This record gives sequence, C-alpha cells and structure tokens, in this order.
Amino acid sequence: MATILFYSVNKTAQTTARRCLGSQLKGLASAGESLSPLSSAHSRSVPLLTGTRWLSRGTKVRFMSHGTAGRSASGKTRRGALALGGAAAVTAAAAVAGFLANTDHFQRAEMATRVPRTAKETEEEGDILERCRGFMSPPVTDINVLQERKDEMRTKMEMLIMETQAEFCKALEKVDGGKFRVDRWDRKEGGGGISCVMQDGKVFEKAGVNVSVVSGNLTEEAAKQMKSRGKVLKGKDGKLPFVAMGVSSVIHPKNPHIPTVHFNYRYFEVEEEDGSKQWWFGGGTDLTPVYIDKEDAFHFHKTLKDACDKHHPQHYPDFKKWCDRYFYVRHRGESRGIGGIFFDDLDSPNQEEVFSFVKSCARTVVPCYLPIVYKHLNDSFTDEEKDWQQVRRGRYVEFNLVYDRGVKFGLATPGSRIESILMSLPLTARWEYMHEPAKGTREAEMLDALRNPKDWV
Amino acid sequence: MATILFYSVNKTAQTTARRCLGSQLKGLASAGESLSPLSSAHSRSVPLLTGTRWLSRGTKVRFMSHGTAGRSASGKTRRGALALGGAAAVTAAAAVAGFLANTDHFQRAEMATRVPRTAKETEEEGDILERCRGFMSPPVTDINVLQERKDEMRTKMEMLIMETQAEFCKALEKVDGGKFRVDRWDRKEGGGGISCVMQDGKVFEKAGVNVSVVSGNLTEEAAKQMKSRGKVLKGKDGKLPFVAMGVSSVIHPKNPHIPTVHFNYRYFEVEEEDGSKQWWFGGGTDLTPVYIDKEDAFHFHKTLKDACDKHHPQHYPDFKKWCDRYFYVRHRGESRGIGGIFFDDLDSPNQEEVFSFVKSCARTVVPCYLPIVYKHLNDSFTDEEKDWQQVRRGRYVEFNLVYDRGVKFGLATPGSRIESILMSLPLTARWEYMHEPAKGTREAEMLDALRNPKDWV
Repeated sequence: MATILFYSVNKTAQTTARRCLGSQLKGLASAGESLSPLSSAHSRSVPLLTGTRWLSRGTKVRFMSHGTAGRSASGKTRRGALALGGAAAVTAAAAVAGFLANTDHFQRAEMATRVPRTAKETEEEGDILERCRGFMSPPVTDINVLQERKDEMRTKMEMLIMETQAEFCKALEKVDGGKFRVDRWDRKEGGGGISCVMQDGKVFEKAGVNVSVVSGNLTEEAAKQMKSRGKVLKGKDGKLPFVAMGVSSVIHPKNPHIPTVHFNYRYFEVEEEDGSKQWWFGGGTDLTPVYIDKEDAFHFHKTLKDACDKHHPQHYPDFKKWCDRYFYVRHRGESRGIGGIFFDDLDSPNQEEVFSFVKSCARTVVPCYLPIVYKHLNDSFTDEEKDWQQVRRGRYVEFNLVYDRGVKFGLATPGSRIESILMSLPLTARWEYMHEPAKGTREAEMLDALRNPKDWV
Repeated sequence: MATILFYSVNKTAQTTARRCLGSQLKGLASAGESLSPLSSAHSRSVPLLTGTRWLSRGTKVRFMSHGTAGRSASGKTRRGALALGGAAAVTAAAAVAGFLANTDHFQRAEMATRVPRTAKETEEEGDILERCRGFMSPPVTDINVLQERKDEMRTKMEMLIMETQAEFCKALEKVDGGKFRVDRWDRKEGGGGISCVMQDGKVFEKAGVNVSVVSGNLTEEAAKQMKSRGKVLKGKDGKLPFVAMGVSSVIHPKNPHIPTVHFNYRYFEVEEEDGSKQWWFGGGTDLTPVYIDKEDAFHFHKTLKDACDKHHPQHYPDFKKWCDRYFYVRHRGESRGIGGIFFDDLDSPNQEEVFSFVKSCARTVVPCYLPIVYKHLNDSFTDEEKDWQQVRRGRYVEFNLVYDRGVKFGLATPGSRIESILMSLPLTARWEYMHEPAKGTREAEMLDALRNPKDWV
C-alpha cells in the first residue's frame, strides 16, 4: 500500500501576487472560458493507487480508502484514479433517469444509462472530510481550513467544483473504461489546481477536467480593471485580498457522432477595507457536434433550460444568446458549436441564490452530456465523417487559440501551467485548404447551423 | 483548348480603402510574416489547363502557351499548372549545383538534384510579357501597366515575387509529382493575389505559396501608425496612395525527416504630397525541422549567409538574431524552428541595393530548401517519428495563430481571404498532454535546439 504526500498550499506566497493579476482575474474569474489553469511553476503527477492513503502534511488529516474499493476488475493499477470508499461508491444513474422522466422527446432507452449519482446526495450526507473522499484528489485548500470555514461561499464553491470534477470524470471513466491522469500543481503566488486528463481512450480522444483555486492580493492594475467593469473596490493599505476558483472541461470524443462538450463554472471574491466582500459567479456549458442531431440538440438545451427555469425565466433565453455571441469564430463567420448557456458577473439577487443557480448548472453537466455519449457509443462512421470531424477540430483550435479569453490570458501570463491551459486542444486536428461541403450533405447542414444559430428548444 | 478570362483589378475601388488599412499595412508590408493574403471578397479558382490561352480582358493582350509544352507524361489534365513554353521550360539545377560548388560541407551527391533554373536567367533574357509566361498565373497588375512602368520598383518587385512563386512552385511540383491549385482573387479596395496550394501530395502534406499586391490610399489611422514607426508622411488633400506586395510560403512535408520551410519577401511604397515616395522592404526565410540534422542546418544557414554576405557583412548576423527573436513561441519557451533570417523596414543605402539584396534572398529559397528535400526524400520513418512530427506541427499552429502578426492582422480584418491566411497551417497536427521526450533521444535533442538557439554556420 503506497503512501503519497500531497502538496500543501504555500501560505506565505498567498500574500504576494504582484504581477499580472489583473489579467489573471480577467482570465480566471471573469473571462475564464478556458480550462482556467492558474500560473504555477511547480506541478507533478500524483498517481493515486488503489488503496492509497492520502496524507495531508500540514494538517495531519489522513485519508484512507477502503482496502479493496475501487480496485479495477483486472487488479491492475489505476493511474490517476482515486479509490472510492463506502458512501462515495458509484451508483446507478439517478440524475439522468430523473431528468429523463421530465422530458417529452428524449426518452430513448439507450439514454437512460448508468452514471454516477449526483454530488448533491453526497453533499447532504456527509461532512467535508467525507465528501472529499469522493474527489479526484485532495482539494486545493487544506481540508482543515475548509472545515473551519465551511459556511463561507469560497468553501461551498470549492467543494462544488471538486465534486463536479469528480462526478464528471467518473462518468467519463465509466463509459470509456480508461482512467484519468491526475496532476496536482501549486501556484507560487497562492493556491493551485488539479488537472485531470484522459488521452487516447476507447471513447475519448482527449478529455480534460480542470479545477483551480487561486488567492492573493489584487494588483493596482487588477483593481483598475475591476473598476472599469463597474466594480469599485476600496482596499486596506492598498491591499485587496481575493480568491478566484473554477472548474472547466473540454471533452473530445473519437466517434464523430459524439459531440465535443465544454463547461466552466467559476467564482470570484475580493475583500474590501471594511472586511466586506464583493463577489460574482460566471460559467456556462456548450456543445460542439460534428453532425447535427436535433434530438441531441433538444436534449442538451432542454436540460440546461430546465436548470435555468428553476431559478429565473429569463436566465435561459439571456444566457443562450450570450453563449451564441461568445463562441463565435469571427474570421470564419460561424459559431464554434450549437451553443448552450454562458453568463458572467452574476451577483444578484443574493449570493445563496446565485450559488444555487450555479450548482444547478454544474449538476446538469452529466445529464446534459452523458446520455448523448451513450446514445452514439456504437454508431459506425466512415473515413469521410472522421475527416469532417478533424476539420471541425481545426476550427475548435482556431477559436481556442485566437478568441478564448481564458486561453489568451493564460498564454500571456509568465509562469502559467501551459499544459493545463492547452489541454482543451484536441489530440488531432486538420486544416484542408478551401474545404466546403457539397450542398445537401450532412456536413453542409452542420455548417448552416453554425452560420445561423438556431433555437433548439 | 479552354479559354479562361482572368480578373482585372478594379481600378475605381483603388481610391477607397477606408477601413482597416492601418492594420493591413502592419500586416502586409511590415509585419507580414504570414502568407499575407490581402482582403478580398471575391476569389475563385482558375484552373489553367495545358495549352490554355490567357486572355486579359482589359488589355487585349493574349497569352498562348505552346500547344504541347507542359503536358504531363500521362496526358492527364494538370490542375492549376501553367503550361510552360520555350525559354521558361524547366531545366537542370544550375543554381543548386553552382551553390554546392562553393560549400565545404555539403557536397553529397543526392543534394545536387535537378531544380528549375533561377528566375534571374529568365529576367535577363526576356521582356515583361515573355517573363510573365513563366508565372503560375497572370500577374495581379495588368500586364500593359507593368510594361508602361517597367523601370519602377513596384514593377520590378511584382515581377520578382511572381517569379519567386513560379520558381518555387515548379521546383516543388517536380519533386512531388503533384500540381499546385492556383486561385486568383481580387481585393475590392484595390489589387488582389494569387494563392498556389498543393495538398496531400506524395511528398508534401501541404504546400502554400502566396502572392499579393495591394494598393489604395492610407487611412489616417494607418498614417498615424506609420508615424509611430518613425515614418512621417505628408499626404495630398489628406490622401496617401500606397502599394504593398509580397510573396510568402509555408511548406509542410509528409516525411518527418524533411523540415518545414517558410519564407516571405515584401515591399511597401507610399506616395507623399510632393510626389516623392517612401518605401521599405522586409522578409526572411526560416526552417522548422522535426529532427536536427546538423548538415541540413549548416547548408540552410550557409546559403542564406552567402546571399547576405554579398551585400553586407552584418546582414546575416543581425537578421539571424532577429529571426530567432521573432519566431519564438513564448508560452512554450521554445523557438518555432532553427531560424534563418528575418528583417523589416529595410530602406538603406538605396532602393536598388536593397532590392538587389531582397532578390538575392528570394533566389536562395530553392537552393536553401530543395537539396534538403531531395536528400531525405526516401528516408524511412517510424510511427513514433511521425507522431513527434505531428506534435511539432501543433506547435507550429500555436505560433501561427497566437503570435504571427500577419495572421493576427488578417483574421482581425473583415473581408480577408481567410483560406489564404490559414493555408500556412499544416494539414494535420496533434496535441498530446504533457508530452516530453525522454532524455538522450533525438526528440530531446530537437527540443534542446529550440530552447537554446544555436549558431549553425
């Protein structure tokens, strides 16, 4: 039974975040449509083996998984997989099944596939220590610290993003059969992240799910940027302590009939002179198919709409439009995909309600996407269809490198963890000169939907 | 025998180039490290068949190739290939053979391969009409106009870039066996271009050679940008007529032992109130191998150095350093390739001398590159070597989409001919998470050279 130390956050470094934080804030807490990896000079893979003990060096808290739980059937070592014990064990697809019961058009048997149960159940059952057992890695913030301030929003959000990462990774591992590689990394100036990547799997060409939690003090430049966004901040002795965190993911499947999905949910908080806090949330989930499947499009958007409608009737229409506007490859005159929702700077009516909305969104990720994956799992495809997928992958690269604010910020920030920023890029892509599908083909139908965004619900 | 009309430049549109010209100038005449395609709403492929007549609608000048010259051995239609007649017929490799006679370390027999003779010979033999017969397409500027002002620099440069395009394309066609597709396109505001692309050939995965010739009036914004670069311009009635032109190319071979090459040579001219002209040249050639071959690196740099040394002893050392600085993928901490030369704003000692230098550089393209292609033509390679090539291709995409000023400008300019801008991207590329070659491998040796630029001569 191996024993692995994991990195504790460098507390002393938290107070010095002098350089480039303005951009960091923009990239992470506000723009952060990328995988939002924060700058870090230090990172290494943490291969958590079956039966691994987690030893928190700073807090003396020990995590010990059940000796046998989570062992793969073959008995082989699970690279990057966290052994699951007791309450956190994977169960049947309550979330998806529940969702399906409420839809009109999307009740095909193959969609009611098993996915891990929702994080909600876990949250309601256990305390922080217990909930952490289900994560892909110990959280970025020391668990003792999380326990001490368990009622603060930064703790609630860190737990949510860790749970979202774990829930999604496990659902993907289940359908793929492969395992995520888990890399924990520190950020010198405060905080760090957990990058989970599965590459060249059976189902997924490349799947990345990233969590980052960054803290420090806003630079003057960053404070100015906040001001330009309507946020007037008064610091104490010129200092504005902040925390920015998020979970983000891009999944590129192999089969051209399974779409690419992207999501990102993030939270920003800054403390003013009088100790009060300004905060806001951002996020979104969007789908990039290679071929139009109206049923998939309806299911995806309807799932998001239902989650939005529980909170405000304008959320879905507003955030759907915002999504179409944001994910636009201007030089091609086409959207990156068929959209979903996108929002930023959300800070009303109150913190609990916005968090509740973000939680609803984060918890739709699996029911939005996994049923579509299972539906097309065994779809056959031709070389031509694979080529078209590769051409579309090229467009995805164009959006991410040319327009994505999070990626642009990350690449421009010295010390960024580039591998976490660029894990959103597909394993393979293709650029054909003057590629234009013939009229009447399914490829032309896809292009038309990208050139003229549609209402899918 | 097909008869094809080609597009004449829209003269009336030349006087209105209100929008985005500032950026255009930056992208085309100064930064233009991309393929520099100018904005154009109208383009279409001009498949010049064997024995095709070129009919210039505006000038009534007719081009007629020899009826049989240039027909392929198989008798099949040559897509995009210009039939060659008489003096322009492909001959043996005088240029390369001549070059080789002057080198110390690069006299392997396989390098003395046949390439088309240099454009120089053609230039010295015939008049403009005769020289145009050797081009991939009629020039952008009407041939009557070129003849009328044959002693002006803009004409000399347009002839040089057309010749460079033709010479290089023909050399590539000869080694590949495939044919370039030739697309002529107009720019609404004045001028146009000729894009030659060969895709998925026997030797070349993707080969693009682009010519563009743009004219119009500088916008105020553009004039301001010029000023910020130290160029004070006085217009007549606020108008500053300009012309910007260049040839640029990126060649991605299939075999990982054949490097990618890029070159770009460009000229900018603006007319002031008193009729006098400000002008400058820019350009460069650089190599991006997948594996280090010191002999290739020496040959490539020595060929450039010899061309530079004929003009000024500081040219090579200065422009070699400039090249290393420019082609730097900052977020990776590595150069795009092993460099070459790069220069801009060159306007001394006088126009004829700078043109002569640029001509020397443009004429080294074939002798720099083709011997390396022939040398590795039949090199065998493994799947692992192909994978490494694909990972390097990914880095090439990163540079071109994130840093290349010409590409960035082009993508940001409404109405740009995107396909010509992005023909520099490889047909295929790959992004592997956390890819790091093992120590002591040839891949690690390549990375080391990219992280620590070397002196190859």
